[in-house]
Amino acid sequence: MASLKSLYDSKTDLGSALHTNFDVDYVVDYRFGTTGKAEAEAQFVKLVQALNDVGLATEVRNGDNSSVLIFVKIASDRHLKAEVYRSRVQDWLYGVRTAAPEKEMQQNLSSEPVTEAERLRLVYLLITKPRNEGGAGITPKSGDWKSVVSVFALHDHEFNKAWIKQLTSKYFLNAKDLSEIKDRFGEKIAFYFAFLQSYFLFLTFPAGFGFCSWILLGQFSPIYAIINGLWCVIFVEYWKKQETDLAVQWGVRGVSKIQHKRPEFQHEHVAQDPITGEEVKVYSPFKRLARQLLQVPFALVAALVLGSLIATCFGIEVFISEVYPGPFKSYLVFLPTVILTLAMPALLSVLTGFASRLTDLENYETTDSHEAAMVSKIFILNFITSYLPIFLTAFVYVPFGQIIVPHLDVFSLTVRPFAEDEKQLTAPKAGFQINPDRLKKQVIYFTVTAQIVNFLLELVLPYITQRFFRKYKAVKADRAMKKNGTASPTADDHPEESAFLIRVRNEAELVAYDVTTDFREMIVQFGYLSLFSVVWPMTAVSFLINNWIELRGDALKIALETQRPVPWRADSIGPWLDALGFLSWMGSLTTAALVYLFNGDGLGPDGTPWSIKAWGLLLTMFLSEHIHLGVQLGVRKALSKIDSPGLQKERAERWAVRKQYLEDSIGQEAADKAASGGITSGEKISSSTLETVFGSGSSANGTPEQRFWLRQRGQDDSIAVGREFIAKAATKAKGESKKEL
Amino acid sequence: MASLKSLYDSKTDLGSALHTNFDVDYVVDYRFGTTGKAEAEAQFVKLVQALNDVGLATEVRNGDNSSVLIFVKIASDRHLKAEVYRSRVQDWLYGVRTAAPEKEMQQNLSSEPVTEAERLRLVYLLITKPRNEGGAGITPKSGDWKSVVSVFALHDHEFNKAWIKQLTSKYFLNAKDLSEIKDRFGEKIAFYFAFLQSYFLFLTFPAGFGFCSWILLGQFSPIYAIINGLWCVIFVEYWKKQETDLAVQWGVRGVSKIQHKRPEFQHEHVAQDPITGEEVKVYSPFKRLARQLLQVPFALVAALVLGSLIATCFGIEVFISEVYPGPFKSYLVFLPTVILTLAMPALLSVLTGFASRLTDLENYETTDSHEAAMVSKIFILNFITSYLPIFLTAFVYVPFGQIIVPHLDVFSLTVRPFAEDEKQLTAPKAGFQINPDRLKKQVIYFTVTAQIVNFLLELVLPYITQRFFRKYKAVKADRAMKKNGTASPTADDHPEESAFLIRVRNEAELVAYDVTTDFREMIVQFGYLSLFSVVWPMTAVSFLINNWIELRGDALKIALETQRPVPWRADSIGPWLDALGFLSWMGSLTTAALVYLFNGDGLGPDGTPWSIKAWGLLLTMFLSEHIHLGVQLGVRKALSKIDSPGLQKERAERWAVRKQYLEDSIGQEAADKAASGGITSGEKISSSTLETVFGSGSSANGTPEQRFWLRQRGQDDSIAVGREFIAKAATKAKGESKKEL
Repeated sequence: MASLKSLYDSKTDLGSALHTNFDVDYVVDYRFGTTGKAEAEAQFVKLVQALNDVGLATEVRNGDNSSVLIFVKIASDRHLKAEVYRSRVQDWLYGVRTAAPEKEMQQNLSSEPVTEAERLRLVYLLITKPRNEGGAGITPKSGDWKSVVSVFALHDHEFNKAWIKQLTSKYFLNAKDLSEIKDRFGEKIAFYFAFLQSYFLFLTFPAGFGFCSWILLGQFSPIYAIINGLWCVIFVEYWKKQETDLAVQWGVRGVSKIQHKRPEFQHEHVAQDPITGEEVKVYSPFKRLARQLLQVPFALVAALVLGSLIATCFGIEVFISEVYPGPFKSYLVFLPTVILTLAMPALLSVLTGFASRLTDLENYETTDSHEAAMVSKIFILNFITSYLPIFLTAFVYVPFGQIIVPHLDVFSLTVRPFAEDEKQLTAPKAGFQINPDRLKKQVIYFTVTAQIVNFLLELVLPYITQRFFRKYKAVKADRAMKKNGTASPTADDHPEESAFLIRVRNEAELVAYDVTTDFREMIVQFGYLSLFSVVWPMTAVSFLINNWIELRGDALKIALETQRPVPWRADSIGPWLDALGFLSWMGSLTTAALVYLFNGDGLGPDGTPWSIKAWGLLLTMFLSEHIHLGVQLGVRKALSKIDSPGLQKERAERWAVRKQYLEDSIGQEAADKAASGGITSGEKISSSTLETVFGSGSSANGTPEQRFWLRQRGQDDSIAVGREFIAKAATKAKGESKKEL
Repeated sequence: MASLKSLYDSKTDLGSALHTNFDVDYVVDYRFGTTGKAEAEAQFVKLVQALNDVGLATEVRNGDNSSVLIFVKIASDRHLKAEVYRSRVQDWLYGVRTAAPEKEMQQNLSSEPVTEAERLRLVYLLITKPRNEGGAGITPKSGDWKSVVSVFALHDHEFNKAWIKQLTSKYFLNAKDLSEIKDRFGEKIAFYFAFLQSYFLFLTFPAGFGFCSWILLGQFSPIYAIINGLWCVIFVEYWKKQETDLAVQWGVRGVSKIQHKRPEFQHEHVAQDPITGEEVKVYSPFKRLARQLLQVPFALVAALVLGSLIATCFGIEVFISEVYPGPFKSYLVFLPTVILTLAMPALLSVLTGFASRLTDLENYETTDSHEAAMVSKIFILNFITSYLPIFLTAFVYVPFGQIIVPHLDVFSLTVRPFAEDEKQLTAPKAGFQINPDRLKKQVIYFTVTAQIVNFLLELVLPYITQRFFRKYKAVKADRAMKKNGTASPTADDHPEESAFLIRVRNEAELVAYDVTTDFREMIVQFGYLSLFSVVWPMTAVSFLINNWIELRGDALKIALETQRPVPWRADSIGPWLDALGFLSWMGSLTTAALVYLFNGDGLGPDGTPWSIKAWGLLLTMFLSEHIHLGVQLGVRKALSKIDSPGLQKERAERWAVRKQYLEDSIGQEAADKAASGGITSGEKISSSTLETVFGSGSSANGTPEQRFWLRQRGQDDSIAVGREFIAKAATKAKGESKKEL
């Protein structure tokens, strides 16, 4: 990756610009193109004042096409430190950290230095938090701040370069690499890379096994199905454990509890927290639950709309490829694909709009829960678009092909203009043979072709467009110069900064990075593996290769094609975990069904639905599912037995805190004793001690209780009395035995 | 319950004896009947010394037939207090209590008085804990202490009487009653009553609904099935929540973590706890897991053995009742019952033996996990014996009756001696009609008759035998007196104590109370409700009545028929929770199957297996199960939204502890600020502050960073510059627009 340098914009030599960010924390991109001069100025003044009011230093520079860039950094080191310490203490109050921060602020900060992610997070909060929580309350693109188009941090290109070099030079990320990512881009993104990493590692097994079984067992092998299912379970359970473990190691476990309020949240009434005494805004969870139920109709509608579109295109495709013999066939075959590529995005955007509307309606309190709800809805859409086509082929086309195909004439009109005679437009009423390879072809398409296409769209295309756009911009600027002497934005840049400012202006143009899309990609991929890989065991191999590139690609994307993301924290991969579980469970059903239907000639019982035993199919699925659930339980139990560094760390901290407290309170010696649970060897009891207890006095007077306990004075008495009893009993026994003689 | 008094042994007037326990904590029953005099004495001496060594006062009295009763109590109040405080601190160290105990021991004890349960528990531990942990290491019936037959606390008859009076006089136990039970008999037993209580309350609904649907819908109604299934889910989920809640309220949450080591536990090696530095004995969890897998063959064998027995008796019964027309039929019908009642207990005891052997093999570290493992095995046995007969009728006899019955001749030999001719011994080869009421009759038997029988066996029979036994003992004693003047054990009782001692001797004869058997009963009962109640909707009504009595009966049992139980702690009903979940899940399957098979004429599709659609059956079960799982998820989510007093309490304590700590460390004012997360309104930034940050100096020299941040001195500069930019841009825009004109 020596040519990495060349990747960076080389219009002007940015050598120096890449070395320093001039201590800038954030850049506020203020665009006043649409607003009038007076208003724009007023707004601008308000903005700068707001920033200064919360202790942020500002420098103003000119931006591209009628925008101003406000460079922000926290003014005094003292202020930053206070912020950091406060947030740490608060973490601890909310139970995120088990160990209390050092009582001395300075001491704490020196013992636990401030990471870049921490600093950037806090500064961002300072800018965006509502005023009553002590922030500047600047919410980009909304409310009063419509003209603030973005608040973004500047890339640390030195680091990025080194980072990508390093990534591309090694196969696996180790813990150090991950925590480095965490310290730069925050836990949320670090979690993505951690997940991608363990997923990649886990893939090696099904890749190897898949390859073997592809050679030895062929497709639809029950053995492969079982092993693959087992693998899915183990992977999901492992990740669950790994996740919490990382959260603990990174000191963010339970951080989701103190996520940031959504400004859009509408409360019904204000109640006082019985515990902290703080005022909390309340919205009835049951109302929310009721609204959440709207997801059901939403899912149904989505399934119906997308389903019918997919089904139609599917039908047309079948008709053209397998019925229509007329001219242009080779071109017409692509007709459905064209329809899909045109109609699908439109539909999806509409449905996504609905989804977000719905999520707003559910009115969540925190950004996290809001995101999670949105994700779950998006997942439904993805599920339909990604898997439905294969479902159709596997469970409709193959078994029922011979019934359906004859009725596909309805689609004949799509090709009518090209047909030479009617015959070409009528499906054969009988003797039609379904295409056995269709299913396999489809799976290969989704697991190889689609992945590659996706990668190109995701990484390469944006890069090219970006380059083009910048060239275009430069040319335009020059033309403007020549045409009328109006100064280009660069006109009054200080020479020392100009390179830097060009870089910043470029970064201002970039889009924001959204980690959820990358997550979605991986989860959907996992879905193919667990649901359909039995059709084509090589699936995992393709994924293994793809993900090696994917990981580096995403790194490149973050480094070059998006603004530097705000380093948010997170304690898990959130809702995606449920998605994983759901998919691996679903896999136990589909895989079983596929094996039952296609095992053997890989074509289903000669492709006719009648020869399929419905009860056999159901029974297979039923069993496979319950085995899956059973195994899951077992694996979970087994994993829970294993102690992990994270959990150990946590236990240790807990214990330390308590021990500490104990020592403060009842002194070292006592603490040890209490902790070890040792018991002072009880003092010998003599009648005297008892007397002290009861107040001395002859056994004559005093309460019956006292007399009872003073009958035998000390253990010697008791022993003597007991001896007596035993002896007596013994003699008595002897006596009786004598008599019996 | 005025006649309660009469329930107590009225041989001698124990009026006084019932009022006081002479401050006795425990009675050690030392029996030397078998051992020789010398050895017996030596052992006895050792025993008394061991007790005294750990600070326990002893009094010795004569016991029945060659036994000595050693009365034990903690010698000095100081010693007790130390024990209590130590255990509380330890609880806290292990995370059982969130709030730290008062730093001053006295203060703590006064603020949180010692409950009777707590005292008794600690004294019992003092007696039984191994010596190295500071106990006397006396383990009844095992090791050196074979001759110590029991260590039991004395009943507080005053309390018992009042308690039972109270129970019988009210319908529902409230929180106060439960915590009273907890303070007397420990959390473990309190949890049983709490469970029984909520179960009873929940039963009211299915009882009412069941009664209605019995009148309106008849049996096998899908509506009833759905509602009942829903109820099961809600109940189980509710209890899960309730359980943790109670645990928190009673301050025992997570107490299972510090359960007591099993003396029998064998460790592989000793490791040092990385955290506490204590030495811990380790046994590989994987070895254990491997051994746990032995449960599978065990379950299979049990199923096979018990199953075949039940099936045989079932076959005989069917043959006799529905084929055999000969004489004595009315008596012979009971033959299978007789066989069962004879063979079953023997088989069960054998299998239970196996189970306990297996559990020992699994070599658990703590008594709790040991118990849990045993329980799960016992549950398997119960499951088979309780439910298999109904399964046979529902899923074998009814659908396949017409195929099987003709082959039942094999059982003819059971009645051969009584038959008059061969014809009576041969089953009709065709045209046999199965008995439609059998299933219902069976369910009614198990849900009504069996419950009553069980109650009699459990409570009344023991009471009678006890009474008889005591009479017999008294008579024998008198005879012995007359025959040879040997003194009865009561001979040298001090008159003041004699009544008390008689009472103690009687209590020594009693069996120990085992709460698990009572739990088992309830769980099995719940099973009938969730699995088969669709056959006879009145089930719940019968259970409702039964359980009202059951609760009081169990109280009576504890009070009169068993020794006072050691008040152990627990933080849940343990393994029974899983059993509950399993049964309600199983219910979703069986109920669906029953409805599908028998809905309509309540006899299955004219009783012939061929007319049953296998796929229909499977599909019904499949759907019902998945609806069940879905609903479960929903209910869990909904319940998790509800805040409960227990969880609130916990949060409050957590918060308090941290706040406290904070105040200790960084002072009231700072604490408030940090807690409220408020931010000091940032100080205005002027160039001066910046200069102080960077060290003052003209912008000429210094690092580029410094110069960058000093270009605009303070916010006014920035604003001015920004204004300029905006103005320029505006004019430029105007200019362009002019040109375009």
